[in-house]
Amino acid sequence: MTLSDLPTPALILDVAKLRRNVRRMADAVRRNGVALRPHMKTAKSIDVARIALAGQAGGIAMSTLREAEYFAGHGIRDIQYAVSIVPDKLARVAQIQKTGARITLITDNVGVARAIAAKGAELGATFHVLIEVDCSEGRSGVLPGSEDVLTIGRILHDSPNTELAGIMTHAGHSYRCRGLAEVEAMAETERAAAVAAANRLRAAGLPCGTVSVGSTPTALYARSLTGVTEARPGVYMFGDMFQAQIDSCSVGDLAVSVLAAVTSHRREFDRLLVDAGALALSKDRSTEFVANDIGFGLVTDIDGKPFQPQLAVARVYQEHGQVQGGTGVPFDAMPVGSRVRILPNHVCMTAAMYDRYHVVDSESGDARKVIAEWTRANGW
Amino acid sequence: MTLSDLPTPALILDVAKLRRNVRRMADAVRRNGVALRPHMKTAKSIDVARIALAGQAGGIAMSTLREAEYFAGHGIRDIQYAVSIVPDKLARVAQIQKTGARITLITDNVGVARAIAAKGAELGATFHVLIEVDCSEGRSGVLPGSEDVLTIGRILHDSPNTELAGIMTHAGHSYRCRGLAEVEAMAETERAAAVAAANRLRAAGLPCGTVSVGSTPTALYARSLTGVTEARPGVYMFGDMFQAQIDSCSVGDLAVSVLAAVTSHRREFDRLLVDAGALALSKDRSTEFVANDIGFGLVTDIDGKPFQPQLAVARVYQEHGQVQGGTGVPFDAMPVGSRVRILPNHVCMTAAMYDRYHVVDSESGDARKVIAEWTRANGW
Repeated sequence: MTLSDLPTPALILDVAKLRRNVRRMADAVRRNGVALRPHMKTAKSIDVARIALAGQAGGIAMSTLREAEYFAGHGIRDIQYAVSIVPDKLARVAQIQKTGARITLITDNVGVARAIAAKGAELGATFHVLIEVDCSEGRSGVLPGSEDVLTIGRILHDSPNTELAGIMTHAGHSYRCRGLAEVEAMAETERAAAVAAANRLRAAGLPCGTVSVGSTPTALYARSLTGVTEARPGVYMFGDMFQAQIDSCSVGDLAVSVLAAVTSHRREFDRLLVDAGALALSKDRSTEFVANDIGFGLVTDIDGKPFQPQLAVARVYQEHGQVQGGTGVPFDAMPVGSRVRILPNHVCMTAAMYDRYHVVDSESGDARKVIAEWTRANGW
Repeated sequence: MTLSDLPTPALILDVAKLRRNVRRMADAVRRNGVALRPHMKTAKSIDVARIALAGQAGGIAMSTLREAEYFAGHGIRDIQYAVSIVPDKLARVAQIQKTGARITLITDNVGVARAIAAKGAELGATFHVLIEVDCSEGRSGVLPGSEDVLTIGRILHDSPNTELAGIMTHAGHSYRCRGLAEVEAMAETERAAAVAAANRLRAAGLPCGTVSVGSTPTALYARSLTGVTEARPGVYMFGDMFQAQIDSCSVGDLAVSVLAAVTSHRREFDRLLVDAGALALSKDRSTEFVANDIGFGLVTDIDGKPFQPQLAVARVYQEHGQVQGGTGVPFDAMPVGSRVRILPNHVCMTAAMYDRYHVVDSESGDARKVIAEWTRANGW
């Protein structure tokens, strides 16, 4: 099977670019002397995890219990479930732990901390819990200086069925940074919030083994991670058009694309249609507020080379993508039935529309040859 | 299992509302004397198709070959693949036809018409093809008065391995209509374009058995469908917050919702988080340009009753939905761990994030009881 005969639309993963991206992040995190805990919410694939874990300690982060079951089933033993736990999910967590994996949970809520302790006793389970700190994004977490840090810490430390595992935070707002100086400052904000909360736990006589931070931009560009024990970036493995514009990678680094076929020519409107629409690309519009808004994806030829001048998927319907260029669509180079690839805005969203990757290797002799199919653990 | 113990997030389908929505559309289409061909791209479920087909001729429309295989495998014999075919997909179409289903294809391209004829000869298959007409939306299709209508018609009629099945069009831009008068006018535009193209085929001595139109608004409100043979609406089965605002249904008719749990309180920002984010709701923003923009979904209690004043999912991250109200979040009514339901912007997109429906019946004695699980045929 090659890119010329795969059914379209299909999700394509270039393993050569994946390997390069993984090495770059591993080097960046090693330079700061902390462990790398790859966040698998983007890739949701054991094959990708094995590449991301080469030379690392072996722990991962993830964002659904479905992923936890999947990765534990594939032998990963150190799993951080990096989304606020609710008590209803604890029985399933205990079930996964019985298979030998250690799941680390997170919470930012005193009531939930008490419920975890109670549920642990009820189930005869031990739950390992990090306190989530808000490092000024304003999403989830407690403020590092809040009384809640200590209250949650004491509940988790004092209860026989919970372990206070430490502190975690996530600078999701690093995606709003423009330029290296802003990212470096954000990385320091993230580090400082996590370390401040950790130090407050320790000053109160509580343990704090883990101090976990991480987003792709801050993990790449942090100047110091003093006091931090691990970084948890995820999207760096693949990159996307948004990450390329906030300098986490270049367009040439993007490892994931959507293979699509041209389905209609509308010369009277200077548009054509491809069979990758809202379901095949997602409706993510991350590039809306960066310099180069590429709509729902940047169009390249079948070998991944962007058209010049640039062509974008300007509009999507459920199964139609409408392609338009600023300066004319090259219809003759793109006959109906021919194939293109589309680089996504936000790869976490686009990849989630597919149950598998079709893997190619752009550094091999045949960059169009599909060398493997890797499945994804979608859903919850 | 009930809505209180289902793992969250989960896709909930109220079969009582589905049945009511199906009856309403069946009545509307029958009034105009045409056949109803339910478009299954929204539901992608044989269980839903069986309800939508009660009392109908038995044909469906759909939008992926995966759906075609699934529905053919469940015994549906008359399937319209209502997205422009490309030659590469014809071998798979022929394969499905061998199981006894008749697949009707669509094209708007002379070159593709020739390729279908050639591929039919090569495969020893007969392909049934409708000519897609653009009724002024500007998406796919040929203009009804264009020479292409006749050229494609002749190729399909003259080739031994293709059947010219007729004309189809889709007034997707009916979603931009506001108010009954505009929808009625759009329905007439859609009808007139399809009938004009059909009459041109006939005047040229070509057959035109099928004249197919349809979007949910135009199928519901068309004043006349003279000359049309069938309507192909789809989203009417479920409805969504966008359809409710363009008067295709009311909020009380919405049959599909996402069950979610409250995961964090952020009283300092007057926000809370739920475990339904960008993947659980999709990033569709259809309500952005209608009167009541509900962000990524309208929040209701576990029984489907909207909060007063209105609460919306204002922002989404991959697994977090951030809920904000204009006038304050009722934190005490929504403790961490409690459950809500979220009514989607655009149900075709939201439902596609799930592999199954959990079915409830709001007209039964126990509206929270999950009475069935119905699977969906996602992907391509």
